[in-house]
Amino acid sequence: MAGRELTSVRSPRVKAARRLAKRAFRRRENRFLAEGPQAVREALAIPGGLAELFTTAEAEARHPDLILAAERAGAPVLRVSGEIMAELAQTVTPQGLLAVCGFVDVPLGKALEPRPRLVTVLAHVRDPGNAGTVLRTADAAGSETVVFTDASVDPYNGKCVRASAGSLFHLPVVVGPRFDALIPELRRTGLTILAADGAGDRTLDDAIDGGLLTRPTAWVFGNEAWGLPDEILDHVDEVVRVPIHGRAESLNLATAAAVCLYASARAQRGT
Amino acid sequence: MAGRELTSVRSPRVKAARRLAKRAFRRRENRFLAEGPQAVREALAIPGGLAELFTTAEAEARHPDLILAAERAGAPVLRVSGEIMAELAQTVTPQGLLAVCGFVDVPLGKALEPRPRLVTVLAHVRDPGNAGTVLRTADAAGSETVVFTDASVDPYNGKCVRASAGSLFHLPVVVGPRFDALIPELRRTGLTILAADGAGDRTLDDAIDGGLLTRPTAWVFGNEAWGLPDEILDHVDEVVRVPIHGRAESLNLATAAAVCLYASARAQRGT
Repeated sequence: MAGRELTSVRSPRVKAARRLAKRAFRRRENRFLAEGPQAVREALAIPGGLAELFTTAEAEARHPDLILAAERAGAPVLRVSGEIMAELAQTVTPQGLLAVCGFVDVPLGKALEPRPRLVTVLAHVRDPGNAGTVLRTADAAGSETVVFTDASVDPYNGKCVRASAGSLFHLPVVVGPRFDALIPELRRTGLTILAADGAGDRTLDDAIDGGLLTRPTAWVFGNEAWGLPDEILDHVDEVVRVPIHGRAESLNLATAAAVCLYASARAQRGT
Repeated sequence: MAGRELTSVRSPRVKAARRLAKRAFRRRENRFLAEGPQAVREALAIPGGLAELFTTAEAEARHPDLILAAERAGAPVLRVSGEIMAELAQTVTPQGLLAVCGFVDVPLGKALEPRPRLVTVLAHVRDPGNAGTVLRTADAAGSETVVFTDASVDPYNGKCVRASAGSLFHLPVVVGPRFDALIPELRRTGLTILAADGAGDRTLDDAIDGGLLTRPTAWVFGNEAWGLPDEILDHVDEVVRVPIHGRAESLNLATAAAVCLYASARAQRGT
């Protein structure tokens, strides 16, 4: 069990963890924060994934197995007061467990080495909640790699981590390549590059019927508000739009991604 | 143009509008709030849809066409200070236009009269943002009616209105029927009733391959956290699950709904 309870926000460990709410500090430390028992379990499943665990007395009583597993993994367990936990956590109702995790992303080359057949690229995605939901959906649809380009939100942002519901820990995530450097690498891996955009000249149904989705595919998803810029649309193999059958002007990014990725999963599995 | 600017939160008109943030007052007045120029346009497109329009001086200068159209529609235009607008609006950056709208929902019988072939039912959906996103997705996928059962969130909740991105105004929305009263009405309309639930015994691919989705269908979507209760699952024709190909535990409700509704749209359109 954890020793003395930390009750001061000025404690150096608490201060260090609080700083991880900011991207610059996350990058410097190669660490990020993830809340709740599920996140702790996911981090523990990765060698060296859990760097430090903040708990409250109540959470320790509720999850003795996780506290024990953290200690066995060599991660310091630090008990803090409810107020400190509320300061550290980014949710309104923190669950009393806050994991300091080591970065989990991998280099692009390593992610593409097993020649994945379904890759998800987030280009210019700025809303962390949307990005996390796309990551979760990509995982569910069987996408084998997710790439966040340099123009996208940081996947280690607290809101993104929460919205990913653990998927950040499940599949190789690549962070930060420029789109123009990414394109040739995806092509070399044999991937057809499809951009999802409301301005696409082909509908998703047409892409399915034409057999396009049976190929190994990298799907590129863009910004919530204004789609993908021309410098991206000009360099992909096809721009595909999810058809709008009713009167909605557009789809939410994560729902459009779900429809595209599941269409690929179905086509590639030959059903 | 609007006359004298209202600067007091104690103004009776401002107080009346503020109360509409609460469901009980919305129900009593049959009115709800919708923010931004798109919402004003949508409300104006429905006879009697716009009851009152709050504006700021800046928004009036930016949208003279909307102010004029509101006045022509007979809706009082009330200019308020930036502080009052911030008080009234539920977003961090209000766009200076706030419409007081009349309820747009229709009775179940009227919504089912044209014998719709694709109906969306929100049962036990509690998160207003999720509910609004499902409504937007249903509109995009060509669902002809959306039903919010009595156990679901109020579609006139501000977050739901925003997340629907105008779709609340686009298609017949039914509010408040009990699920057990709804079921026989859907059957009488010739609809096959499918529940989307992770515990389903049939996968969506199996439902597509078996031709199930070509039939007129009512899709039932449930709670984000714990799915649909047995009293619902026991009374639908089939429980269908979106397959999870990767390691995600589940899908977000709105993304699961997108995959199901677009699968129906594709099957029904015979592509």
